[in-house]
Amino acid sequence: MILAIDIGGTHYKLGLVDAAGGIHQLRTGSTDRTGGADWMIARLNREAKELLEQAPAGVRACGIGFGGPVDFAAQRILSSTHVAGWNEIDLPGMLKAELGLPAVVENDANAGALGELRFGAGQGCRHLVYLTISTGIGGGIIIDGSLYRGAKGQAGERGHLPVLPGGPRCDCGNQGCLEALASGKSIGRRAEEACAARPERGSALLALAAGAALSAETVFAAAGQGDPLALELVDETCRYLGLGLAMVVNTLSPELIVLGGGVSRAGEALLAPLRQHTAAYTMPAHRELIRVEQARHPDEAVLLGAAALARTWVV
Amino acid sequence: MILAIDIGGTHYKLGLVDAAGGIHQLRTGSTDRTGGADWMIARLNREAKELLEQAPAGVRACGIGFGGPVDFAAQRILSSTHVAGWNEIDLPGMLKAELGLPAVVENDANAGALGELRFGAGQGCRHLVYLTISTGIGGGIIIDGSLYRGAKGQAGERGHLPVLPGGPRCDCGNQGCLEALASGKSIGRRAEEACAARPERGSALLALAAGAALSAETVFAAAGQGDPLALELVDETCRYLGLGLAMVVNTLSPELIVLGGGVSRAGEALLAPLRQHTAAYTMPAHRELIRVEQARHPDEAVLLGAAALARTWVV
Repeated sequence: MILAIDIGGTHYKLGLVDAAGGIHQLRTGSTDRTGGADWMIARLNREAKELLEQAPAGVRACGIGFGGPVDFAAQRILSSTHVAGWNEIDLPGMLKAELGLPAVVENDANAGALGELRFGAGQGCRHLVYLTISTGIGGGIIIDGSLYRGAKGQAGERGHLPVLPGGPRCDCGNQGCLEALASGKSIGRRAEEACAARPERGSALLALAAGAALSAETVFAAAGQGDPLALELVDETCRYLGLGLAMVVNTLSPELIVLGGGVSRAGEALLAPLRQHTAAYTMPAHRELIRVEQARHPDEAVLLGAAALARTWVV
Repeated sequence: MILAIDIGGTHYKLGLVDAAGGIHQLRTGSTDRTGGADWMIARLNREAKELLEQAPAGVRACGIGFGGPVDFAAQRILSSTHVAGWNEIDLPGMLKAELGLPAVVENDANAGALGELRFGAGQGCRHLVYLTISTGIGGGIIIDGSLYRGAKGQAGERGHLPVLPGGPRCDCGNQGCLEALASGKSIGRRAEEACAARPERGSALLALAAGAALSAETVFAAAGQGDPLALELVDETCRYLGLGLAMVVNTLSPELIVLGGGVSRAGEALLAPLRQHTAAYTMPAHRELIRVEQARHPDEAVLLGAAALARTWVV
């Protein structure tokens, strides 16, 4: 058994993962963004101890997927784009001191890519690209069956592909990044802007939201009911995502692209227009090779990949 | 010694390459595009036989770099974007039958990447991206010291990165590909268009061309003399190239990007604005990692890489 931890900007998860990818004693909670790194580390220590007390013997190691850049070789968290206090943090060392387990940390999108490769839609693939769309957008690259990390351990930042130069400002400091246009948060923001600009077209969306802020989930729900504005927003989202994926296909020619993260749960409502737009921007010779599939574990791929990494790295 | 051949849309080259990367008895000629594949194959057979007759004993194999998509695993040329008659051609088999040498064929940009890795600017690198800008734009990716070919042997088509959706039509059928904006041919075309649109700004360029069609070389020469229109064209070219390179850096985070091909001979006049624009489109966290250097063998990287491949593949 491996203790697996998934630290995101909105939620965190802990669980025990067996060698076959079964998840046991899953715990989830909301991330307190104002609490920063200190809050999260204290919370994880407490929850992990409770979990380990109830666990069968034989938890051998801990694997962590973190929502932000990680220096894998140095085993340090570099920063978080969503939560303060995560600069240059030796989280594996801290957890080892508290829990007595060897620990390994990896960026969550990389962990998700590995989770889908070992236990999900990518089983048997040699070259795979994983794109995760939730609050933000991340990605992981599998080459020849292994995670590709690039020169400094930070390859695969697909969220910051420049799809609309001069477009909306991204949290990274640039403009028109894929994440600033097609993440869950950005889909919601674009919906708010569209409704504010032309309120007469936004009535169905606003009714569905019932006073709450517009979310990607609401946009896909309204699109499923045939609302024209929501359908436009979905199509525009898939155009940006398709442009980003075409950059990946034209560069890496992977066997498979796997879409994970909360927004991927929209299923074919997202995948069908996304396949069309991706093909339109892809070099004709590569079009027939494109396979874009939904993750098999949109919610648990990070836990599964973090566990797989801990198994090969520290056990 | 290896017999090395470089088949381009404008020129072809043959030579003997020794184990240290020395090139002997180099022959070059102009490609007769109207002659198609038949003309080129007959010409190569004749020139190779002449060359081998004068060669010292011990030419062991033949390596070919071809300007178009190659199915490396099947050792077949798939097509040429520039010259007719190259569909599904078993060129290694044909040359072997005529010359009695085992032969291997690879896409020219991939061969160029390998040439710069083994004998040029990329010596000692693990992860390297090679971009070649001549008539067209090609690219090769080195990962962990080896060529990365992707699922179907055709990865690295950097010429068809979609940098300006809806932009000018590319030979590949799409619009706004990097090649349709920043190849040598496209730089010349954009210069012609700019001079036609505002002739009063084009006088220096047109004078330098002296009646010939405007070329990338003329644009860089005029920019070197401070001509404002030429400087604008160079800056715009570097903006498109920088956007394409940022896609590569944000995806692969290589140690080094090497620029080859005829246009790269512009040197710092190209590299300086290109580094600026690449940095502007790159995720801030990756900016300090960017290294963009000129190829050490802009004219011979393909021969050197084709020879290196033949040495490891067939000797």
